Amino acid sequence: MRDVAIIGVKNTNFGEKWDVSFRDIFVEAGAGSLQDAGVAGEDIDGLYVGNMSGGQFVEQEHIGALIADYSGLAKNLNVPSTRVEAACASGGLALRQAIFGVASGYQDIVVAAGVEKMTDVSSAVASAALAAASDREWEGIMGATFPGLYAMIARLHMHKYGTTSEQMAEVAVKNHSNGFLNPISQYRRKITVEDVLSSILVADPLHILDCSPITDGASSLVLAPADIAHEYTDTPVYIKASSQASDTISLHDRKDITTLDSTVAAANRAYEMAKMKPNDIDLVEVHDCFTIAEICAIEDLGFVKKGQGGSFTQEGETSIGGKIPVNTSGGLKSCGHPVGATGIKQAVEVVHQLRGEAGKRQLDNANIGMTHNVGGSGATAVVHILARDR
Amino acid sequence: MRDVAIIGVKNTNFGEKWDVSFRDIFVEAGAGSLQDAGVAGEDIDGLYVGNMSGGQFVEQEHIGALIADYSGLAKNLNVPSTRVEAACASGGLALRQAIFGVASGYQDIVVAAGVEKMTDVSSAVASAALAAASDREWEGIMGATFPGLYAMIARLHMHKYGTTSEQMAEVAVKNHSNGFLNPISQYRRKITVEDVLSSILVADPLHILDCSPITDGASSLVLAPADIAHEYTDTPVYIKASSQASDTISLHDRKDITTLDSTVAAANRAYEMAKMKPNDIDLVEVHDCFTIAEICAIEDLGFVKKGQGGSFTQEGETSIGGKIPVNTSGGLKSCGHPVGATGIKQAVEVVHQLRGEAGKRQLDNANIGMTHNVGGSGATAVVHILARDR
Repeated sequence: MRDVAIIGVKNTNFGEKWDVSFRDIFVEAGAGSLQDAGVAGEDIDGLYVGNMSGGQFVEQEHIGALIADYSGLAKNLNVPSTRVEAACASGGLALRQAIFGVASGYQDIVVAAGVEKMTDVSSAVASAALAAASDREWEGIMGATFPGLYAMIARLHMHKYGTTSEQMAEVAVKNHSNGFLNPISQYRRKITVEDVLSSILVADPLHILDCSPITDGASSLVLAPADIAHEYTDTPVYIKASSQASDTISLHDRKDITTLDSTVAAANRAYEMAKMKPNDIDLVEVHDCFTIAEICAIEDLGFVKKGQGGSFTQEGETSIGGKIPVNTSGGLKSCGHPVGATGIKQAVEVVHQLRGEAGKRQLDNANIGMTHNVGGSGATAVVHILARDR
Repeated sequence: MRDVAIIGVKNTNFGEKWDVSFRDIFVEAGAGSLQDAGVAGEDIDGLYVGNMSGGQFVEQEHIGALIADYSGLAKNLNVPSTRVEAACASGGLALRQAIFGVASGYQDIVVAAGVEKMTDVSSAVASAALAAASDREWEGIMGATFPGLYAMIARLHMHKYGTTSEQMAEVAVKNHSNGFLNPISQYRRKITVEDVLSSILVADPLHILDCSPITDGASSLVLAPADIAHEYTDTPVYIKASSQASDTISLHDRKDITTLDSTVAAANRAYEMAKMKPNDIDLVEVHDCFTIAEICAIEDLGFVKKGQGGSFTQEGETSIGGKIPVNTSGGLKSCGHPVGATGIKQAVEVVHQLRGEAGKRQLDNANIGMTHNVGGSGATAVVHILARDR
């Protein structure tokens, strides 16, 4: 197994991008990451693209080939390009498949990107498209949408562990505070607990400010064998672990819906592979599609005991300067959630932090970072550990 | 890079499967391949699933997790499962990603499967879903469907090389003759050149019997490191090459639409990797979505000089007993074309031939076989070379 490094990164701005098309967005991110890496098109052995639902959002499948083509890599160069889909974990899996391509020796320089253009359809179409990430026959068809599914998780977490609406709101407040410092964020504004609690209820107990938004955006990484990474950059970031796990797609089949078994399994596999423990991690980007999801995530990843994620957040331990800074990018909540791009954006943020390029949200002593990307209500989870030292 | 072997295979019957659901189909194929390999669920390190358009055909994305769940591999075992999409080349790419998983050392025993349930929607919805594999903004939105795109390829091939409708019809006749011998085929009946030429025109010069059908079906393979393949089977089949290439997604951007540059590039890469030439190949499953596509494929893969595919077919050289038997399974035309499954089914057929298990369509001396799977009108091509000897 060859070691793999990240040698280039780029995010587009996230938001409602009315002035650019799906194609424009991914070209901006892809070209930016190549420029960051100092890599030319002729050097690229493969593309991997995370995209959840191009078929429904922009009536386009075959996204991999489309991206190769519009990036100028199809004609003459015939660069292979593969779309990977696992709902909102599509980006994380694109990174993972790209790692396999390099680790196997089949490919050297590869691009792992994610893209979603979600705002060209009505919110009804978007909701239906997103609901296709749940179990269509047992959840979607019954009218369950993702806010509804996560509201059930929140309710049980409140019942079992005493988690409060205020504690969930603190997740949103902290992520908006971080996102305020991130130039690409969809929502660059600070909010208060009172703002969250007084915002409209989407699915009780989740207010709209507990929910991540609909977003357009793309993110891209360039990967290379670790042995040659220094030919391209002085600041390579190394992949220490890549892990993935599945759980039942329906909530009703789970043992306990307040724990995402896929997150637990993926985290355990990642710690084992990297020979690390939670307290080795300096920062983590977790999948905060809803505020309750971040609370479950920090518990299931082992940063805090089960049931204590709410109070841990309320005490500031997940803020910049806390025990384990969570979602310095602003997370899905404030930075935005273009579903196929999110898993890649998480890695871009960790790379920015490890390189010391995170601007006003820069952490001291950021040496090892983790990303945690979830599909649906946890049927898929992907965890990566990245480090400055090989 | 670790060598990889196929240790188990299974196809469902292909056809209009009104009595079973999407979920039933893939479970039948997956479980069958595990049984064939003698592998238990606990042994599996990963699933890869080729599926083109679950979002539009069955309103379900997140197909990877769904399959892990309904196969009993998600709860407790938390087996990672990844959907790969490249239109009709989704199956071939699922096989390729599975190979990378094993070759990299990240995974040992993996399942590479493909599934599509296409008949639960109207033909209008199916056509629109399939058109999403073309360039939506330059082809689909103008009303171009795949029969129309391939009709343009056929017209130019006829003009440049003198290819005739009779020669194209011979492809269908030969594939129906093979498919008649394949128990899983959607159309187990022989046809004549006259049948093809008198069938209704879909897009001049393509008659309906020049076109592959809409099909439900699934296929599955089990892969293992070559070093341990004999622990599971006496007849492993080895991966000698896996290659992939892209071309422009729109036909109008190509240098010459009668040549699929992606096929040429993927074939050249595969021959180089396997250190082989076309005359080393004993049989090939090519992507005959239309009869003209098979003619282009055998030319672009190097089995016959450009422009001579039609006469080569007419002379019987691609039939069982000919110089290079093409589509002994019956191909997409007669065996059927469940789009996400096709690339896997091609490999299943080659394995059956190399193992000597192809029944009445068994070839003499089948030692090395090739698969050729195409997405859209050739924006993606995937080629694999499989062999009895390591």
